[in-house]
Amino acid sequence: MRRTRGRGPTERCAPLIKFLNALPRLSPERLRAVLPVLDWGRTYDRAQFTGDMTAAVIVTIMLIPQSLAYALLAGLPAEVGLYASILPLVFYAIFGTSRSLAVGPVAVVSLMTASALAPLGLESLVDYTAAAAVLALLSGLVLLAMGILRLGVVANFLSHPVIAGFITASGILIAASQMKHILGLSAHGHTLPEILSSIWVELPNTNLPTLITGLFALSFLFWVRKGLAKFLTSKFGISAGTAGTAARVGPVFAVIGTTVAAWALNLPGAGVAVVGTVPTGLPPLGLPNVDLSMISTLIGPAILISIIGYVESVSVAQTLAAKRKQRIEPNQELIALGAANLSSGLSGGYPVTGGFARSVVNFDAGAETPAAGAFTAVGLLLAALMLTPLLYFLPKATLAATIIVAVLSLVDFSILTRAWSYSKADFAAVLGTIVLTLGVGVEVGVATGVLLSLMLFVWKTSRPHVAEVGQVPGSQHFRNIHRHKVITDPAILTLRIDESLYFANARRMEDLILSRVHQSRDQLKHVILMCSAVNEIDLSALESLEAINQRLTDQGIKLHLSEVKGPVADRLKCSPFLDELSGQVFLSQYDAFITLTQQVHDTGEDQSVA
Amino acid sequence: MRRTRGRGPTERCAPLIKFLNALPRLSPERLRAVLPVLDWGRTYDRAQFTGDMTAAVIVTIMLIPQSLAYALLAGLPAEVGLYASILPLVFYAIFGTSRSLAVGPVAVVSLMTASALAPLGLESLVDYTAAAAVLALLSGLVLLAMGILRLGVVANFLSHPVIAGFITASGILIAASQMKHILGLSAHGHTLPEILSSIWVELPNTNLPTLITGLFALSFLFWVRKGLAKFLTSKFGISAGTAGTAARVGPVFAVIGTTVAAWALNLPGAGVAVVGTVPTGLPPLGLPNVDLSMISTLIGPAILISIIGYVESVSVAQTLAAKRKQRIEPNQELIALGAANLSSGLSGGYPVTGGFARSVVNFDAGAETPAAGAFTAVGLLLAALMLTPLLYFLPKATLAATIIVAVLSLVDFSILTRAWSYSKADFAAVLGTIVLTLGVGVEVGVATGVLLSLMLFVWKTSRPHVAEVGQVPGSQHFRNIHRHKVITDPAILTLRIDESLYFANARRMEDLILSRVHQSRDQLKHVILMCSAVNEIDLSALESLEAINQRLTDQGIKLHLSEVKGPVADRLKCSPFLDELSGQVFLSQYDAFITLTQQVHDTGEDQSVA
Repeated sequence: MRRTRGRGPTERCAPLIKFLNALPRLSPERLRAVLPVLDWGRTYDRAQFTGDMTAAVIVTIMLIPQSLAYALLAGLPAEVGLYASILPLVFYAIFGTSRSLAVGPVAVVSLMTASALAPLGLESLVDYTAAAAVLALLSGLVLLAMGILRLGVVANFLSHPVIAGFITASGILIAASQMKHILGLSAHGHTLPEILSSIWVELPNTNLPTLITGLFALSFLFWVRKGLAKFLTSKFGISAGTAGTAARVGPVFAVIGTTVAAWALNLPGAGVAVVGTVPTGLPPLGLPNVDLSMISTLIGPAILISIIGYVESVSVAQTLAAKRKQRIEPNQELIALGAANLSSGLSGGYPVTGGFARSVVNFDAGAETPAAGAFTAVGLLLAALMLTPLLYFLPKATLAATIIVAVLSLVDFSILTRAWSYSKADFAAVLGTIVLTLGVGVEVGVATGVLLSLMLFVWKTSRPHVAEVGQVPGSQHFRNIHRHKVITDPAILTLRIDESLYFANARRMEDLILSRVHQSRDQLKHVILMCSAVNEIDLSALESLEAINQRLTDQGIKLHLSEVKGPVADRLKCSPFLDELSGQVFLSQYDAFITLTQQVHDTGEDQSVA
Repeated sequence: MRRTRGRGPTERCAPLIKFLNALPRLSPERLRAVLPVLDWGRTYDRAQFTGDMTAAVIVTIMLIPQSLAYALLAGLPAEVGLYASILPLVFYAIFGTSRSLAVGPVAVVSLMTASALAPLGLESLVDYTAAAAVLALLSGLVLLAMGILRLGVVANFLSHPVIAGFITASGILIAASQMKHILGLSAHGHTLPEILSSIWVELPNTNLPTLITGLFALSFLFWVRKGLAKFLTSKFGISAGTAGTAARVGPVFAVIGTTVAAWALNLPGAGVAVVGTVPTGLPPLGLPNVDLSMISTLIGPAILISIIGYVESVSVAQTLAAKRKQRIEPNQELIALGAANLSSGLSGGYPVTGGFARSVVNFDAGAETPAAGAFTAVGLLLAALMLTPLLYFLPKATLAATIIVAVLSLVDFSILTRAWSYSKADFAAVLGTIVLTLGVGVEVGVATGVLLSLMLFVWKTSRPHVAEVGQVPGSQHFRNIHRHKVITDPAILTLRIDESLYFANARRMEDLILSRVHQSRDQLKHVILMCSAVNEIDLSALESLEAINQRLTDQGIKLHLSEVKGPVADRLKCSPFLDELSGQVFLSQYDAFITLTQQVHDTGEDQSVA
């Protein structure tokens, strides 16, 4: 303790203290916002532990077959599914704000992974697996960057119909892609026509034992889903909740049953494909060993996977949080999912996100905190260490059946009829998304859906509704002369513009206003533009307003504005337009109408009821 | 006449008559709309002929140097400029609706042509010229298709600031690209940094005689533009209009002067580049002889050239038409420009459009009908047949000077300051357009400008303004509680939503409304959404409204809507939302406030002035 004579401890540590002072100060609130685990961890108690532990056991049983199945869907070795279900759960538990979300491989993201890796044309499974890990790393970086830049709002640009259409189309694609495992064929393809025609060509090579195994698994799983809960409730008096959970873990019985059958009957000898040797041990830690040039090919798909995964995860988390009046923080969710994907990429996994089915099971089984996720991770780690030899005889047809039953519940064409009856633009966006996802691919499908819905929105705002309005008798309210019985004045034309004025509609609005003025009676003295629905006037529109003002002045007609909103009026005050305006700006349409009617009346005109 | 006995004439012609009957009936009005020449041609008289003829002579004199110069700007042989100024003018005269527009090669389109052809990497000038003709053909087809599909509105998506920024940046690029001719260097490049660094490297090779010729032409032309009109008016008492026209044809004197000087002083021997041999004769008619595979490379630029050319042309035509209270028909203009470009491509030309300077000269010189354009075409045809040998000694530096003086009048940075003071979004769009046009290229510049302005619009609508409103005392009008002194009621929260509700803002609006409700006092019984500025509610937003209604109902608060517009209300009636709504839909906000205050008052609450 006396080794450094002559310099006081403060002096010696000065550079360190200086460095620490330079760091941004983390207040306890700020630290808890970044690490929600500090928040719920402080008050963690025995009751929460019991709930979390129960949920973890059930979710683990459910996740083992699901992880293997989704890895196969992504074209990866089965164990990659297990690896992607260990560290990501731990990291989500540390950073996530949802108390019930269960993270791991999910169907849609697995499909997108397969679709993203296909163009690389990798022959070796080792390279393909490494590329999947790179995709997880890139996706993790994208999610982290979005979280730090607080870009969670980007997800809002995916409209609900587009998401619904995309999920439905993905469900169909996934189910179709799994048919080959049920039939025992080697079909391929990434679009519905490719997959179906490939299966059609191979159909004569169907392997009967595989088909029997597959159909048995399928019918058992459909029965578990539809009939088991009712059966348990009515026969054994088990509560509906417990019976529902039992139905969710049902797949594990199909796994055990068909595995035992495959072993006992030597089904692999009869041509039934089985999972085979799954390496036993810890997930491989470290950076995947790949050619860095593939990053440029993978970054686009990684962004898409990140956004789709985030949207799926956040909507599940929000639905569950609302049930218990909890809140989730969208930008912190981006960080948590980013950390989960980074850890997946660094431990031999592939892109992960919060899954719907497993989160619901977690929630129903009583998970109280994210610790349930960490306990599930331990369960899956034990499975990876000890259970893998038991999976040797597990038929791939069983896993395919698990996937098919799970994804068919995602398929919901009712969005098409709802959109059709409510809005043709929404319908066009859904239909475009479904058709292109099925026919061209998942990436093109979802990108087109987003662009199409934005283009339709912009197109609609470029062709706005304009109504001529009059005073509703006995009120100060003004409505469309074609829909309501209203008071008008032949010397005054009031047009309510039902859109913000901006470049895409400025010229059209100019033509429209001038042609309405042209149609009006010769008595016209005043035009009032009622701006209650004008939320913005951009520079192009301002120039159109100046042109309208000029043209009307030339014809001896005054232009007035009414009900201009605060933010729009503030903007107009920065331009010379208000000085040039031939008429006035009125606070309310009623003020405008009364004042101008008065003026006209003084010169001898009359009011009439339209 | 008796060769076909036994069959009556009707019988014999039956198939023909059947065919003719199957054609869409062209009423005279319809025919005149498609062929405006039939309209003005019927009443054509001597006075109009005199006006058109005078204008044609002046425009011809102006166009000869300009056509040659713009062809060189596009990297084409000089005669291509003449060819592009013959048939296109005739076709525009037949199909166009503007009475003053003069069509032909223009600066910006010539620059875009050079930029479109560069990636083809064509070595031979013959191939390059053929590719330019293909570009004109493609552009003609695009314009025709847009006209037939009535897509003239597409041009509205180019905001005024984006166009202004693009024209300014193009002017700078063009002027910079012509500097090499003034200096006598062989610089190259398609972006400002490329051009400037290339000139910088070559600067020591400057050819002094060329520089002297160029500077002489430049100073003469600047004087013609700035000083000549004033000189003629003050010294010779010539009217301002005539003096202005004289200033416009000034370049021809620079052409004559420097050509004579180059011949007399043998400037080519001193290293001054001259136009050289220009083939004499008619434009070559027929399809250009090219590799069809280049079409896929050229179609993108052709679309951009078509849209930019159309926007430039229509704005000139509209400006001039407004001065004489004439009208132009945008979709027919597309057809006329399409026909002009097709004819240009089939007669050895390159993309053309309506030019600003020449149209103004045409208008000022007294052109009464599109016949002026046809007469100009005859003038240029004569020039192509007879004048080309005289152009041998014309220095390229003179043509470059003509271009520089013409395009510098397009450069106008005031749009930057106007946009900055009015709207930062508009400013961002202009700045982006200018920087990218100069730094990356014309195509990227204008495309980014359009996308940027659309993205900024969508971004703004995704973050709408929401105001809490109250009753303006003594009126039935409701305004922002933070801007006006208004009456509110603690049991009633009225939020005016200043935007259409759609997917990009639905979720945000949901969070915002629920958090405002959360902040409000416990007395809250009613929430009114004032929808006067809601011009649309899409399916995603409808689902958010359903969620808001559900959440408020859970808290014992009723949700009401007021001032829902006709089209929006019609849409809502197609959904179950109005049945599920806990509150009512009121015609006016005043009705809503009075009715609900009454209800609350009956149970003992009070009003307060906020």
